Amino acid sequence: MSASQTPVAPARAIVRTYPVIEIFGPTIQGEGAEAGLATHFVRFGGCDYRCSWCDTMYAVDPSVVRETSQRLTTDDIVDAVDRLDGHPRWVTLSGGNPALHQLDGLVRRLQESGFRVAAETQGSLWRPWLGGLDRLTISPKPPSSGMADRRRQAQFARFMESAASARDRSVLKIVCFDEADLAWAKDVAIAYGHVPLFLSAGTPVPSLGNVRDAVGDRYRWLCEAVAGDAELAHARVLPQLHVIAWKEATGV
Amino acid sequence: MSASQTPVAPARAIVRTYPVIEIFGPTIQGEGAEAGLATHFVRFGGCDYRCSWCDTMYAVDPSVVRETSQRLTTDDIVDAVDRLDGHPRWVTLSGGNPALHQLDGLVRRLQESGFRVAAETQGSLWRPWLGGLDRLTISPKPPSSGMADRRRQAQFARFMESAASARDRSVLKIVCFDEADLAWAKDVAIAYGHVPLFLSAGTPVPSLGNVRDAVGDRYRWLCEAVAGDAELAHARVLPQLHVIAWKEATGV
Repeated sequence: MSASQTPVAPARAIVRTYPVIEIFGPTIQGEGAEAGLATHFVRFGGCDYRCSWCDTMYAVDPSVVRETSQRLTTDDIVDAVDRLDGHPRWVTLSGGNPALHQLDGLVRRLQESGFRVAAETQGSLWRPWLGGLDRLTISPKPPSSGMADRRRQAQFARFMESAASARDRSVLKIVCFDEADLAWAKDVAIAYGHVPLFLSAGTPVPSLGNVRDAVGDRYRWLCEAVAGDAELAHARVLPQLHVIAWKEATGV
Repeated sequence: MSASQTPVAPARAIVRTYPVIEIFGPTIQGEGAEAGLATHFVRFGGCDYRCSWCDTMYAVDPSVVRETSQRLTTDDIVDAVDRLDGHPRWVTLSGGNPALHQLDGLVRRLQESGFRVAAETQGSLWRPWLGGLDRLTISPKPPSSGMADRRRQAQFARFMESAASARDRSVLKIVCFDEADLAWAKDVAIAYGHVPLFLSAGTPVPSLGNVRDAVGDRYRWLCEAVAGDAELAHARVLPQLHVIAWKEATGV
C-alpha cells in the first residue's frame, strides 16, 4: 500500500442473530426416532403455521416471541449449549418452525463439538441446511390442526421432494387426535412408504383433569386403531413421553 | 417285503407340547427396541426366577400355570397366531421365561409365515434358538427384583458370551425401580457397551391410586437421573407403554 492511499476501515462483518426462546437440557427426547434418548434443546421463535392445538404458542405468537426471545448469534447459542450440564449425544433444534432461520453455521458448529444435531419442522419450507442434519423429523400437520389445506399440502409435497437428499436420516412424525387425522396419516404413509413413520397421540392443550390420563386414553385409542392395520404395520405409535414424565411443564 | 415278515407299526412321532398361557394380538409392543410397533404375543408358562415385582405371576407360579395353561403343539400355536386379526410384522415370544422351552421349530415356522420373531428372556439360560430370532431382548434383573445374586450374575455373564452370535439383533433392557437398580444398570452398560440399552421405568405392582401417575412419576425420576449421565448417553429411557395405554389390563 502506498502512503498516499487512504486506509480503509476493515469491513465490519454482519453478525446474524436468531430469536431464541429457550436453550435447555440435558433432558429426554419425548417424540420421534430419538424418543427416550438424552438431548439438549434449542427452541427458536417464529412459525408460519397456527395449529389449533399448538403446545408451544410461546414460540409462535409474534408478540410473545418479540417479548420473550433473545437475539443470539451462532456463537452465543453454541456457548449456551456448552454451558449446559452433561454431554448428551444429541442437540435438537425446535420451534416454532426452525426452518424459518438459516442455521447452517449452527448445525456445523454443534457437529464439530461432537453433537448429533436433530431438527423438527412441519415440512412447509425447505432449507439446504436441513439436509446436513443427523436427524430430520418432518411433522406434517393433519386436519385437526386446521392447517391441512390444499396450499399447504402442495408445499409439503414439494418439501418431500427436496428432502429426498436426506432420506436416510429422515422420519415422518404425525400427531393424531382423531379418526380423520389417522386417515390422513395413512395417506401420507402410503405416499412415503420408504420413510419411517411415527404416530404420536395428540395431547389436549390445555387438558382438563389429569393430563397423563388424557394422553393415556388417546394413546390407547391410537394403539388399538393402528395395531391391526396392515398399511400401518411399519408405524411406531408413541405418546408424548415428556408429557408422561413432566406433564405440561416447559423447559424440561 | 416278504409275506413272512411281520408288518411294523409306523413309528409314532412324539409331538412336543408347550404350556401356553395366552396368545393375543395384534397389539402394540410396550417395551424395548420395538416399542410402539404392532405385534402378536405368545406367552409361555414357567420361569426360573421369582422377581419381587413380577407383573406376570400368572405365567410364573407353577400351580397357576398348571391350572391355566394349555399344552399346545407348534402347529396349534402357529394356527392360533394365524387366526388372529391383522398381520403385524412381529410375533413376540414371552413368559415367564420362554428360554425354558425348545422353540426352534416355532420360530422357524413363524418366520416362514412372514413374521419377524422376537423373544424376551432374563439371560439365565442360553438356547441355540435364541440365536435365530430377529430380535433378542435380554432383560437381566436388577437388585430390586431380589434376583441379582452372585450365582445368577455368573449365569448372565455366560449367557452374554453365548449371545455374541446374535449381537446384531440383541438389545439389553433393564427395569429400574430405584438408585440401586440404576447403578447396577450402569455397570451392565459399561460391561456391554456395544449392545443397545433400554432402561424401563418400573411399574409398581399392584399400584395404589392411578397407575399412570405412578409410572409417570417413576419415569420422570429415571429421565432426570439418566439425562445428564455421560455413561448412559446411549441408553433409551422408556415407560412401559402398554401400562400408559391399558393400565393393568392383561391380554392386550
